Amino acid sequence: MNDITFAVLGTGGIGRRTLDVSKHRDDLVPVAACDRDGVAIDHDGLDVDELLAATEGNVASDGGASAVGEASEGTGVAASRQAVPTDTPIDDVVAESDAIDAVLIALPNLEHDFIPRVADRFVAADYSGVLVDVLKRSRVIGMLDDRADAFEDRGVTFVCGAGATPGFLTGAAALAAQSFVEVEEVEIWWGVGLESGYRDNRGTVREDVAHLDGYDVETVRGMSDDEIEAIVDEHDGVLEFHDMAHADDVLLERAGICDAEDVTVGGVLDLTSDEKPTTTTVRVTGTTFDGARGTNVFRLDDATSMAANVNGPALGYLKAAVGRNRAGEYGVFGPAELMPGF
Amino acid sequence: MNDITFAVLGTGGIGRRTLDVSKHRDDLVPVAACDRDGVAIDHDGLDVDELLAATEGNVASDGGASAVGEASEGTGVAASRQAVPTDTPIDDVVAESDAIDAVLIALPNLEHDFIPRVADRFVAADYSGVLVDVLKRSRVIGMLDDRADAFEDRGVTFVCGAGATPGFLTGAAALAAQSFVEVEEVEIWWGVGLESGYRDNRGTVREDVAHLDGYDVETVRGMSDDEIEAIVDEHDGVLEFHDMAHADDVLLERAGICDAEDVTVGGVLDLTSDEKPTTTTVRVTGTTFDGARGTNVFRLDDATSMAANVNGPALGYLKAAVGRNRAGEYGVFGPAELMPGF
Repeated sequence: MNDITFAVLGTGGIGRRTLDVSKHRDDLVPVAACDRDGVAIDHDGLDVDELLAATEGNVASDGGASAVGEASEGTGVAASRQAVPTDTPIDDVVAESDAIDAVLIALPNLEHDFIPRVADRFVAADYSGVLVDVLKRSRVIGMLDDRADAFEDRGVTFVCGAGATPGFLTGAAALAAQSFVEVEEVEIWWGVGLESGYRDNRGTVREDVAHLDGYDVETVRGMSDDEIEAIVDEHDGVLEFHDMAHADDVLLERAGICDAEDVTVGGVLDLTSDEKPTTTTVRVTGTTFDGARGTNVFRLDDATSMAANVNGPALGYLKAAVGRNRAGEYGVFGPAELMPGF
Repeated sequence: MNDITFAVLGTGGIGRRTLDVSKHRDDLVPVAACDRDGVAIDHDGLDVDELLAATEGNVASDGGASAVGEASEGTGVAASRQAVPTDTPIDDVVAESDAIDAVLIALPNLEHDFIPRVADRFVAADYSGVLVDVLKRSRVIGMLDDRADAFEDRGVTFVCGAGATPGFLTGAAALAAQSFVEVEEVEIWWGVGLESGYRDNRGTVREDVAHLDGYDVETVRGMSDDEIEAIVDEHDGVLEFHDMAHADDVLLERAGICDAEDVTVGGVLDLTSDEKPTTTTVRVTGTTFDGARGTNVFRLDDATSMAANVNGPALGYLKAAVGRNRAGEYGVFGPAELMPGF
């Protein structure tokens, strides 16, 4: 495969770390990055070290403060010598998209239909290539499916939910299912430790709080930092989640692995320690063709950070999607659909 | 994706069970099967139940006695009402291959270059489609690579090593590697229990014995059943293997996961019990982009049989390869190359 040029929309935690991880692979060439106030484009490849150094304040925000559309404190992309200030960062990337193989949409915790609407802007500009998001919301998948015809017409291969969960762990579930002719249950259980706390991980924490009983994306978006922090404090800094509508369910169903209702997702977010509060584990239970019942297990080492488990897989799915796109396969794909499966 | 028509060469254990597993998926249509004395072809789909019932004696041979090219005892494909006797089973399938999307070469334990030579016959007949094998020999991969240009010219997508290990576990290693920017070690450890013993599992046992110190495929092929059985008895029916040249190493290296020398494969074959003597496990140790070192683990339930872990993945890779083939991607692929990876 030839080199892959890619853009990152949003230079919060996920966007920045994806740029960082891509340095480890010569065939992945980052050519554009933007946040709400600035855009950096270099079709020969961005100087990632300079960009990350210039935007260092962003790393702690984890997709929050400096993501496109949220308030920024001047530590954004525009501070890079490779960047220019702009009021239209996404349109600026769209304008250059003829020379971009893939776009990672690293914009967490915005309105439900924000990512689908970003996709619309690429489609409207006749973009033919790959769009990848790392969303964690079951209902967004349907909004993307509504656009499948437009993607197919334009030659867009859209991969949704390509982070850790959904994403890495969805793929692991699809793999583990290969022993079975019938899958009866997929259990995804994650642990994340972020000692730096809410203030330094606003994007992720808000995204997760929205999955607590009684909250959703809209209510959380209307809440102040103090209100979010009060919730965190009520739980002594350790939030436990069950039955999350985390997209793994619909993404596994659409790949034919099992019914969405047979998928459970939960986990523990500890904002008091970098140690993982629980081991991230995928369990797939099913029946083999010869009638045995069993549970295959995939377990991530506690030493692997959430960031490592988001960004490697995101780039992996991005590369896989570029392969599909170059082969003429367009439309909406989930991670499990990019895995071999029978 | 449309329906996939496929043929199975060899109706020992692997061939038969693959037909059996395919009954669980409507989009997988078996249209041809053969052994040394007979061939069954029906482009509307074989009656798998009838074929399996008619060839029931084959199941215990596990790819040995009734595989193409080895001695058979008259319980072969020709006993099916869908089949005809033939002296040229492979050529008969080749002659029908225009209407066959994929061919599973389920012929273990023959000469090293047997599978490459089978591929040559399809290429010579202008076959354009998928060939899949479940071989377990590192050195065969190079022989297939020597044919890559011919495959590309004809439109053949060849997937090598698409069984359990290599195959399922190679894919699991590629998946588990996604947390890491550098992989330092992949350890594959398998357990198989076959209480039915050597006489009923000649193909598999001979294949494995050839991996013991002091043996190779050629020496084992020249040994009598009594001689093989003597080796088994010397080990009280439990054979333990280390540092097997099992193709996972070269298949992971060609996918860019790690160096071949960083892969170790071993396992335990217990011919005295159907219980697995050890749990099949893949461990991938590496370093994350943020400098942590960890080991991700994939573990198969002891209740899942070797057969379940060969045949589901083999069909999964077959389907994935048909997708690649239809998209115009030809040449030689290992399982890990069909996985998303960055």
